[in-house]
Amino acid sequence: MKQSIGNFLLRRLDEVGIRHIFGVPGDYNLEFMQQLEDRGAPAWIGTCNELNGSYAADGYARIHGLGVLAVTNGVGALSAINGIAGAYSERVPVICICGSLPLRSLERGEMMHHTLADGGRGNFYRVFAEVTAAQAELSPENAVVEVDRLILTAWRRKLPVYLELPSDIAYIEIDTPDEPLRLTPAPSNLERLEACAKAILKRLDSAKSPAFLLDLDADRFGVSRQISRLAEKLQMPVAILNTCKAGFDETSPLFTGLYLGIASADATREVVEKSDCLLTIGLRRLDSTSAFFTDAIPASAIHLKGGSVNIGLNNYQAVSLPELLDELIKKSDSASKRRAPIMRPPPAVSAPTKAPLTQAHYWKALEKFLRPGDIIVVEDGTSFDGATEMRLPPACSFVGQAVWGSIGYSVGALLGTLCAAPERRHILLVGDGSFQLTAQELSTILRHDFKPYIFLINNRGYTIERAILGKNARYNDVANWRYTDLPSVFCRENTAESYTVATEEDLQRVLDAPHKGLVFVEALMDQNDSPVSLIRGGHAFADSDFGPTGPQFAPDANIPLPL
Amino acid sequence: MKQSIGNFLLRRLDEVGIRHIFGVPGDYNLEFMQQLEDRGAPAWIGTCNELNGSYAADGYARIHGLGVLAVTNGVGALSAINGIAGAYSERVPVICICGSLPLRSLERGEMMHHTLADGGRGNFYRVFAEVTAAQAELSPENAVVEVDRLILTAWRRKLPVYLELPSDIAYIEIDTPDEPLRLTPAPSNLERLEACAKAILKRLDSAKSPAFLLDLDADRFGVSRQISRLAEKLQMPVAILNTCKAGFDETSPLFTGLYLGIASADATREVVEKSDCLLTIGLRRLDSTSAFFTDAIPASAIHLKGGSVNIGLNNYQAVSLPELLDELIKKSDSASKRRAPIMRPPPAVSAPTKAPLTQAHYWKALEKFLRPGDIIVVEDGTSFDGATEMRLPPACSFVGQAVWGSIGYSVGALLGTLCAAPERRHILLVGDGSFQLTAQELSTILRHDFKPYIFLINNRGYTIERAILGKNARYNDVANWRYTDLPSVFCRENTAESYTVATEEDLQRVLDAPHKGLVFVEALMDQNDSPVSLIRGGHAFADSDFGPTGPQFAPDANIPLPL
Repeated sequence: MKQSIGNFLLRRLDEVGIRHIFGVPGDYNLEFMQQLEDRGAPAWIGTCNELNGSYAADGYARIHGLGVLAVTNGVGALSAINGIAGAYSERVPVICICGSLPLRSLERGEMMHHTLADGGRGNFYRVFAEVTAAQAELSPENAVVEVDRLILTAWRRKLPVYLELPSDIAYIEIDTPDEPLRLTPAPSNLERLEACAKAILKRLDSAKSPAFLLDLDADRFGVSRQISRLAEKLQMPVAILNTCKAGFDETSPLFTGLYLGIASADATREVVEKSDCLLTIGLRRLDSTSAFFTDAIPASAIHLKGGSVNIGLNNYQAVSLPELLDELIKKSDSASKRRAPIMRPPPAVSAPTKAPLTQAHYWKALEKFLRPGDIIVVEDGTSFDGATEMRLPPACSFVGQAVWGSIGYSVGALLGTLCAAPERRHILLVGDGSFQLTAQELSTILRHDFKPYIFLINNRGYTIERAILGKNARYNDVANWRYTDLPSVFCRENTAESYTVATEEDLQRVLDAPHKGLVFVEALMDQNDSPVSLIRGGHAFADSDFGPTGPQFAPDANIPLPL
Repeated sequence: MKQSIGNFLLRRLDEVGIRHIFGVPGDYNLEFMQQLEDRGAPAWIGTCNELNGSYAADGYARIHGLGVLAVTNGVGALSAINGIAGAYSERVPVICICGSLPLRSLERGEMMHHTLADGGRGNFYRVFAEVTAAQAELSPENAVVEVDRLILTAWRRKLPVYLELPSDIAYIEIDTPDEPLRLTPAPSNLERLEACAKAILKRLDSAKSPAFLLDLDADRFGVSRQISRLAEKLQMPVAILNTCKAGFDETSPLFTGLYLGIASADATREVVEKSDCLLTIGLRRLDSTSAFFTDAIPASAIHLKGGSVNIGLNNYQAVSLPELLDELIKKSDSASKRRAPIMRPPPAVSAPTKAPLTQAHYWKALEKFLRPGDIIVVEDGTSFDGATEMRLPPACSFVGQAVWGSIGYSVGALLGTLCAAPERRHILLVGDGSFQLTAQELSTILRHDFKPYIFLINNRGYTIERAILGKNARYNDVANWRYTDLPSVFCRENTAESYTVATEEDLQRVLDAPHKGLVFVEALMDQNDSPVSLIRGGHAFADSDFGPTGPQFAPDANIPLPL
């Protein structure tokens, strides 16, 4: 089939299920923009800037399975790179399409705008090679191969890729295959798959205390349901890392809590650390996911990755995680005894009073507000710590960055999750300091008439930094905006409902009321109030980041928040 | 002198005249933040996000000579990189200080938050090596050497540099030199300097039509005054590129206009293209500075750079531009005849009427509003084209990106210029599409009680893109904010004056009125109105970017704005 390069790319994205593309137009990508508009699908979601667009593509991919961002050369691509690197860090498949310099100017060696203008070339390509799994510069002769390679690489490896589309070739027709592109996992080597499954089943058969520990690959590779089935069948308890919140039904009797090194509950540590057959999914040991390496993973643990498995001294490559789990479910014997369900009391929320709102009350009240199926988009810092402690109803999604931790992420990501699943309820949990980085993307959310719940803590600063260093330091202060006026500034036909709440009762009234529009809640809280876990974490961060000569040990230091 | 590494770095910045540091705190840079706050100087100017901070550091450096940005590892540095690459493209010395991973975790090979978490290391350092002139990772043993090397490299080469300060060493004491650091240009090799000056003087002596053509190095190397003196002495006419607007007194009889290839005035082309001894300063040929390579620089032109000179087949290295110009001024004979001053009529602004505001009227009215010494910060696109056509009073500064062209730059840059020269009048010229990328930085401008004039064109989209492709395309539309409400949202003690103007008279009333606070003017204009130069440029961009198969030639194309 004869097709222009731009339309071939769009057709491929369509075939793999992309319904929305995020980004900002620029002269080097206008051909592609025009092809997109003429084609009518996927939908174009222009964002206020490229960083926000990259966050949106990331949020979209977490819910939808794959996300796409379109930017222009240099200025656009580099504005977005923090979000693309974040997708790498957090294992999110995002395709970054960069409208790049025309091939004519590269051939002629001409210096162009949106470049470093020093006679060099390829700098931005090399920059992106540092933070993506694959890269390509399209040309008429390689477009068919490279487009498919990049899309498949992103999806199979759950990592971002970078694709340059030179501005003068989008309209050039090439021969393209008739067959649609299908997203298929890299197939396993059957012999190894069976050998690996057999080795794991042998360990499971003799185990007295098998258990699961889930890192984010459990979500990214879409195997949550299989893990549930295997856990059910074998009555294995399941613990999660903070990267995989909502990766397992928290109301299940098998759910055994968040494992975070010495910051874990005793029962959770017992299950994980004493397991004689711990199956980890995608485990990575990071300071922020292991309470600064205070975890104690049994040496006998079996480590499952997306395409390989580690068992003791053995390593199995070419073993696909979904296929392996299917095999384990099929071949394992059901556990003879079922575990007694653990009866968890509902969250103890005292009746709301006229007392000023505290972090302790806030997170409990919000926990009670959650419903099955909610998408909860969570900002780094206070919101992440507070929300991680909430027990989630079944079938929720939890979108946050436990590893990359880029403040401002959540506002852009919310736009992406809204596009990916408009039928679900979306709840943004964010603080003032973080919100200010990316606030303008609220206007795009309003422009498309989405109606999420936005809960913003106004406590006048970077609370997570205060917990680490500089409790009262000026560098941790932010300007005190009139946040609740923003919806009417960003949207002239605004129908959003804005509330400022200062007491427990104020908050409860908003939570209980029926709502029709976007709900924007500014919650006023004390500057020195924060979740206890944040304060503990802050002290640990200070020790890890600054070491034994750090300012936190100086007698006259501007110390972090007290425990 | 014993000093901690962080305090040594701050002392050096202080010694070279840095009075403000821009950026965002993060856990890896909090030690340095605390040292900055304890020291009390330079002043910390926290920005809403890192990209805006990088633009502010760039704007500051353009007025002050050197700028500093402080960010945290990965998330912060990558958010800022577009501004740092822009500083490279536009030759602006900015020092990017990144609070990076503690050396302890690098030594131990631990995976940390704010990284790619794949076991690799050094990715962000390599990323920045692509867009900066020098890089260093500080350690106790190299800190003294590297700090001085990076500061001097940035200042001497007028390029950004990247410095990683590991989070656990800022408080470590080291031996530091007592002598202050001095910013001195790299000294010339005297023999070469004299030989080079002699060769140039010989050419000048026999020349009938010598002239200057100024690119941005004339501003960055601070030689505008010397160029004026030499031009005066020899009665040489001076043309500027659009990168060097305000680089020469536009009311001088020697000023001969903007040279932009075929888009130049005939008189300007004549002076440049027919000169038998054209001295160019820092000339780079770019599509955006040469009207798509339609310039015609005489082959006999002499090209002066910051540290070298090209004369025909000869190349002189180790020749410092300021020293060379001094030598030329000293050794050249004064011209026997003085050029007759060219009498330029003042701008023909017709008396304002009740007619709707047009671009044609707007730029003339603003031109009349300018005063000697103004700092004019100009956004890319419509504002850049409109403002470039204004004749500036003497001693103005013009801050914009003719090469990098990153939309949104101007709002952040304005914060920087305000800090650098609070005693001068600052005027921001920006459009709605660009403003939305970085709008929140207005809050920092208000927070520090600065009182610039902000003129924002509301014509509901990316007008420069409409001029290239997609006149009525949806991808070129932006949301229609209530812009004039933003000051009161961003600042609870707001004293800004907001105006929406729709007619010539509306605008004139605001321009004529006395003002006390920040003045924010939203100018409503037709979506399809734009400066003629922008439309012409748009067509040329389309031809250059898309080539002969591009959509602008298709019969049913969504063509750009008509001429």
